[in-house]
Amino acid sequence: MTRPDWLAPWQQDRSWRTSLSGDLPAAVLVTLMLIPQSLAYAMLAGVPAHIGLAASILPLVAYALFGRSPALAVGPVAITSAMTASALAPLATPASAEWMALAALLALLSGAVLFVMGLLRLGFIANLLSHPVMGGFISGAAVLIILGQCASLVGVRVTGESALTLAWNLLGALPKSNPASLTMGLACLLGLVLTRRYAGPLLSRLGLTGIARDILSKAAPLLILVIAALLVKALHLEDEVQTVGQIPAGFSSLGLAPGAPEIWLGALSALFPSALLIAVVGFVESVSMARAIAERRPTALDPNAELRGLGAANLASGLSGAFPVTGGLSRSIVNLEGGAMTPMAGVYSAGLMLLVLLGFGQMLSSLPLTALAALVIVAVATLIDIRLVKRLLKYDRVDALSWLLALCGVLLLGVEAGILSGIAVSIAGLLWRQSRPHMAILGRIPGTEHFRNLSRHAVETRPGLLMVRIDADLFFGNWDHIQSTLLDWLHVQPSPVRRLILSMGSVSDIDSTALEGLEHFENTLQTQGIALALAELKGPLEDKLRRTGFYDRCNVFRSNQDAFLAPFSAY
Amino acid sequence: MTRPDWLAPWQQDRSWRTSLSGDLPAAVLVTLMLIPQSLAYAMLAGVPAHIGLAASILPLVAYALFGRSPALAVGPVAITSAMTASALAPLATPASAEWMALAALLALLSGAVLFVMGLLRLGFIANLLSHPVMGGFISGAAVLIILGQCASLVGVRVTGESALTLAWNLLGALPKSNPASLTMGLACLLGLVLTRRYAGPLLSRLGLTGIARDILSKAAPLLILVIAALLVKALHLEDEVQTVGQIPAGFSSLGLAPGAPEIWLGALSALFPSALLIAVVGFVESVSMARAIAERRPTALDPNAELRGLGAANLASGLSGAFPVTGGLSRSIVNLEGGAMTPMAGVYSAGLMLLVLLGFGQMLSSLPLTALAALVIVAVATLIDIRLVKRLLKYDRVDALSWLLALCGVLLLGVEAGILSGIAVSIAGLLWRQSRPHMAILGRIPGTEHFRNLSRHAVETRPGLLMVRIDADLFFGNWDHIQSTLLDWLHVQPSPVRRLILSMGSVSDIDSTALEGLEHFENTLQTQGIALALAELKGPLEDKLRRTGFYDRCNVFRSNQDAFLAPFSAY
Repeated sequence: MTRPDWLAPWQQDRSWRTSLSGDLPAAVLVTLMLIPQSLAYAMLAGVPAHIGLAASILPLVAYALFGRSPALAVGPVAITSAMTASALAPLATPASAEWMALAALLALLSGAVLFVMGLLRLGFIANLLSHPVMGGFISGAAVLIILGQCASLVGVRVTGESALTLAWNLLGALPKSNPASLTMGLACLLGLVLTRRYAGPLLSRLGLTGIARDILSKAAPLLILVIAALLVKALHLEDEVQTVGQIPAGFSSLGLAPGAPEIWLGALSALFPSALLIAVVGFVESVSMARAIAERRPTALDPNAELRGLGAANLASGLSGAFPVTGGLSRSIVNLEGGAMTPMAGVYSAGLMLLVLLGFGQMLSSLPLTALAALVIVAVATLIDIRLVKRLLKYDRVDALSWLLALCGVLLLGVEAGILSGIAVSIAGLLWRQSRPHMAILGRIPGTEHFRNLSRHAVETRPGLLMVRIDADLFFGNWDHIQSTLLDWLHVQPSPVRRLILSMGSVSDIDSTALEGLEHFENTLQTQGIALALAELKGPLEDKLRRTGFYDRCNVFRSNQDAFLAPFSAY
Repeated sequence: MTRPDWLAPWQQDRSWRTSLSGDLPAAVLVTLMLIPQSLAYAMLAGVPAHIGLAASILPLVAYALFGRSPALAVGPVAITSAMTASALAPLATPASAEWMALAALLALLSGAVLFVMGLLRLGFIANLLSHPVMGGFISGAAVLIILGQCASLVGVRVTGESALTLAWNLLGALPKSNPASLTMGLACLLGLVLTRRYAGPLLSRLGLTGIARDILSKAAPLLILVIAALLVKALHLEDEVQTVGQIPAGFSSLGLAPGAPEIWLGALSALFPSALLIAVVGFVESVSMARAIAERRPTALDPNAELRGLGAANLASGLSGAFPVTGGLSRSIVNLEGGAMTPMAGVYSAGLMLLVLLGFGQMLSSLPLTALAALVIVAVATLIDIRLVKRLLKYDRVDALSWLLALCGVLLLGVEAGILSGIAVSIAGLLWRQSRPHMAILGRIPGTEHFRNLSRHAVETRPGLLMVRIDADLFFGNWDHIQSTLLDWLHVQPSPVRRLILSMGSVSDIDSTALEGLEHFENTLQTQGIALALAELKGPLEDKLRRTGFYDRCNVFRSNQDAFLAPFSAY
């Protein structure tokens, strides 16, 4: 393997020492968040909490080897964990050996999909999902996750694919709620909200600054979990409150469960569509974060490198016996603000997580699930983005509608069907927009060689001549609209048209379907005594058209001006 | 209901008499083809042959009421019939009462989908499939159909989803072939090929001209079927050769089988995806035919009216107890060349078919299946279009690849998965093309106000100034590429850039995702001391941008020339 590119700038103008001073403190901050989050998201994915730690070691190293983003913090995240649970629900019982084997298979499959897409340079598939659709999907998924975690908070178990059934089942289960669990959960929730808002300023007022203050405030969620666990132990609440329970020690929790490959064979084809969806959603989420990072660090975003990096991370997660991972939003922001300059920060994080797994894994057993639920709720609540809708409503109503459809899709159909309908909405919206490109009848601004839209400028025209500018590439999706617009315009001209000039300055390509349409159209025009002319053809397109008989049958003019002035007898 | 629009031109300048002289002869020609084809395609769809006649009566009337194309001949066609059989195969046994009920349900569901899409004005979904993809799909499906019918020809029964398994199973079944069936089938095949090629010229040489010659030559397939049926009866081959067998008399075959609605309830959700696919494929096939017709008859193509027309036809077919129908290619061409001027031709055809059903239905019983198979083979062989690939290879290699992928998809995966992969290929190709729009660094052609591509023209530039033209609308799918291209170009400029001018003459729209990107990009530029300017903004886009803070932060110039000349101190 060649040396990862990110090493290059780092070795040129930075020593290991300066890297340590940037990446290591960031890694400490990220790890402090990663410990509680990885436990909580493991629970969300339906696997034992310590599997979350396993998902936060090798995947980070794998991403550092293949990924490029200088501050993307990879590991378990809320959305893909919830998608994992939703994909496995019809196939196994949560936390069973079968469930865990299938979760690992899901990671391997998404990893393989991502890695292969990276090799095939399919990074453009991030474009399957527009921001409004992704935003609507994430907001909806956050609501679903919160509803699900509210059940853990009150100490009951509810299921349901859609928000409505979840909320309904939750209401029905409320009478059976566990007071100890509820009290502890609400206390944690309160603690998390308060420390999130006030810990930083309070520590500043206490005279703490810089990295010490950052570390203490980022450690607040971890401290709250530790306090909750100690309370359970001290007050002997193990029978009252559901806890994480006994976990295997040290390295034994890193790796595939025995018997997993046999379970895989039967589930491969059933899990593949879900793996594909998790791969796409995780990739789109990571790429938008990586894009934001690229604006703050002097690196170019390479979606194909991100595909390979996330693919390697998921393959590593699967081999660790864990579940799908991707780039997290909140941890990446902390990583970036903490000063991470290279993916090496992820390697430091992985080292720290390994220490935690080896040294403190046993301390997890009395951690109450209700505290983890509180952590998830606080984390995903920030994903519900209402300001986005307001901005969309003001700027672009089609986009606002996409947001709403994606949101409703998730809330009513669940995460999997929700993201599928989101993709469908994205693509339908794209086709719809592109099936009706902008076109304008041109005239000449008197005294110039400048041709502008007849309906917006005072321009001169010439009888018998219709000049139309098409503002899009011609392809199978828009030729129909273009042709019918041209026919409409031809029919409403005051004097019979003898020459139709297509001004092609904005047209970079014509695909074979549109070319076929153009050829038929030229035939039709000829029978009506109208000559078709092309003006301002771009070089590459002209080269392509020269290979067709159509080019010879048209009159081709270099500029609009030439086409405008040419005598009709030239035909 | 308002009067169908097609009546308007017809009543203005044509009398009933002139319509009868145009539509009626065309209808006779079409009916002569429709009788044998509807029997054969019914067999292809796995339903008894007389159901094909039922599918050719009410649907034609329904299309005439809601559709607009003046010469589209609606009824059973090969591709949708094969898709019907493929959709029902996992759910029932061919020709059973359950199969027939489900075939009718499939027609009702596709009809409902098409009609609702028509009401929602979703005609643009015809753009889901490019011509190369549709061409590859149809060629592949034709190969699948021929392989399947070869089995009927030799008198054996084989199954298989993909071309490979079909061919393999066919080879294995050959030793069991029925000599009587094979002889009769090959004789029919020969007769069909010879009459298709030589009947017209021969009749001309015999002194026949005009409509008489057309009718006789178009009746050839029907005559061959009649001869085959008479032979079976005369030679008492009923036990040697599989025949259509006893069918219910007259009107009783028009209508839903009793018990159908109970069967439907259980199959609704399983059949819906197939109904959707059949609707889309049938619609795309009809619309391309209707488009060709619109070029020959003075009518505008309205895809939404076609959706409603085909939707009504399929609803009528379902209520007749038949199977999905759509606009056929060969019959439409004959209809058009026969002189059809309005959808009334379809009503005449329906009347003739009703007479056939009532008067001659009983004569079908000794019709041998091998003759129908020969008819299908000859009809679909014309759908395999090799010249298209040659043209694509010459003009556009991406399109040629799409053709090949769609073809292989159908051959290897079967019709349903094949068309889905075709749609995926279409959309992926579209996204791929559109994710990398054409961009050019502009310079001024000396002595003019004309700005052209630096790398193609001798132009002048100004130090500290970079002017870039973007030749596409900015949207979520291409902003990444645009931004990274701009950053690349900024980095390789010989002198530091102080102003980046985006020449927006080809940009008609910026969606919210791209706007967000532009805003971030402007921030990044500002930190590097580069001012972002926009030139040649189009009116509607400028109106939209005015509603954002971004507009105020940019310098906006009316023309490239203004932006080029403005002093840097203007910032």
